[in-house]
Amino acid sequence: MAAPVTVYGPVISPAVARVAACLLEKDVPFQIEPVDMSKGEHKSPSFLKLQPFGQVPAFKDHLTTVFESRAICRYICDQYADRGNQALFGKKEDGAVGRAAIEQWIESEGQSFNPPSLAIIFQLAFAPMMGRATDLAVVEQNEAKLAKVLDVYDQRLGESQYFAGDDFSLADLVHLPNADFLVNRTNKAGLITERKNLARWWDDVSARPAWKKVTEMQSTPRSS
Amino acid sequence: MAAPVTVYGPVISPAVARVAACLLEKDVPFQIEPVDMSKGEHKSPSFLKLQPFGQVPAFKDHLTTVFESRAICRYICDQYADRGNQALFGKKEDGAVGRAAIEQWIESEGQSFNPPSLAIIFQLAFAPMMGRATDLAVVEQNEAKLAKVLDVYDQRLGESQYFAGDDFSLADLVHLPNADFLVNRTNKAGLITERKNLARWWDDVSARPAWKKVTEMQSTPRSS
Repeated sequence: MAAPVTVYGPVISPAVARVAACLLEKDVPFQIEPVDMSKGEHKSPSFLKLQPFGQVPAFKDHLTTVFESRAICRYICDQYADRGNQALFGKKEDGAVGRAAIEQWIESEGQSFNPPSLAIIFQLAFAPMMGRATDLAVVEQNEAKLAKVLDVYDQRLGESQYFAGDDFSLADLVHLPNADFLVNRTNKAGLITERKNLARWWDDVSARPAWKKVTEMQSTPRSS
Repeated sequence: MAAPVTVYGPVISPAVARVAACLLEKDVPFQIEPVDMSKGEHKSPSFLKLQPFGQVPAFKDHLTTVFESRAICRYICDQYADRGNQALFGKKEDGAVGRAAIEQWIESEGQSFNPPSLAIIFQLAFAPMMGRATDLAVVEQNEAKLAKVLDVYDQRLGESQYFAGDDFSLADLVHLPNADFLVNRTNKAGLITERKNLARWWDDVSARPAWKKVTEMQSTPRSS
């Protein structure tokens, strides 16, 4: 029988991969429904009912639809609080303060890390896949922005094992897709691997079974 | 006696105004601690201990510090669940699904609405205040991006009174600072007022006592 949870979109997309990683950490069964973006399926009327901006992923759990990858991750953790990784969105006993320690780094990822890292990934990994030219000026400009963010991250990860403290959490998870692209699919791995604490963190978080499963799915032509 | 909650930064900053609006909706007493950004106080070692990226606002509640305005808003709602507006971050009985309905639009604001609207506001409102030239090409480029987002918003607000349904929530609140700047401090008000459902929504949400109080604070030379 099909699982009630469906993720719509190609798992090579960082935002789709983010949601898949969260579902795997929470041990929530799901299926991937392919969306052929080269054919514009993400702009079709049926897709726009799931995701009004025409972006991947879309997400459905029974009759509930949610969009925006970080909102979907929060929903999965709240809805499936008792499954899988119990510390992912803060332990119950840590309350609002524990949740806030995670939220501030999820927001840093969305506001400060994602824009420059995604721009670099687009130019150095996606543009070649799509047969487009790489704009090296865009890469250089965003590398300078990203370096400043990563300096703050490296300092933070010198103070605690993970972004929000002693436990791996959504604060770490949301960074995985773009970080993996930078390290494994561009020539900019050094941004992460040449910063001591970030490198130690990356070796740890990228070896988690849930993330390794996502990268296997990304290497399979039709992920499901 | 001083309130335990302190917001650090000038309330004219959209991100500081976002947090102030949330505190006022939740009826949580607070004080504003000025940060003179023209003197670089947001890059001082003591400020960086509160906010490692050197951005406003920083936030403190007793001994807890939180950064990133949207993370701070979530914390305020979780920590002061029983105060003020009880629907702001979802009613308890609506559970994870109700929370997700709000979260997806908070994320849309952070990912899709904020970047182009902030770029326009910077060029048309802040640059003149700072004696800098306005780059009209940047305005035009971001106006095109923002228009696409606002088309989706206008459609959404034709289906429900507020972004997440029947109740004003954080999904609406996070949009207020940039929307107010666009309408009242640039010549781009039409982006909002010429879209029927968005205009109806703006008339409603901008008249809320909490937001009116924030705009009064913004008009006072030293807000506190």
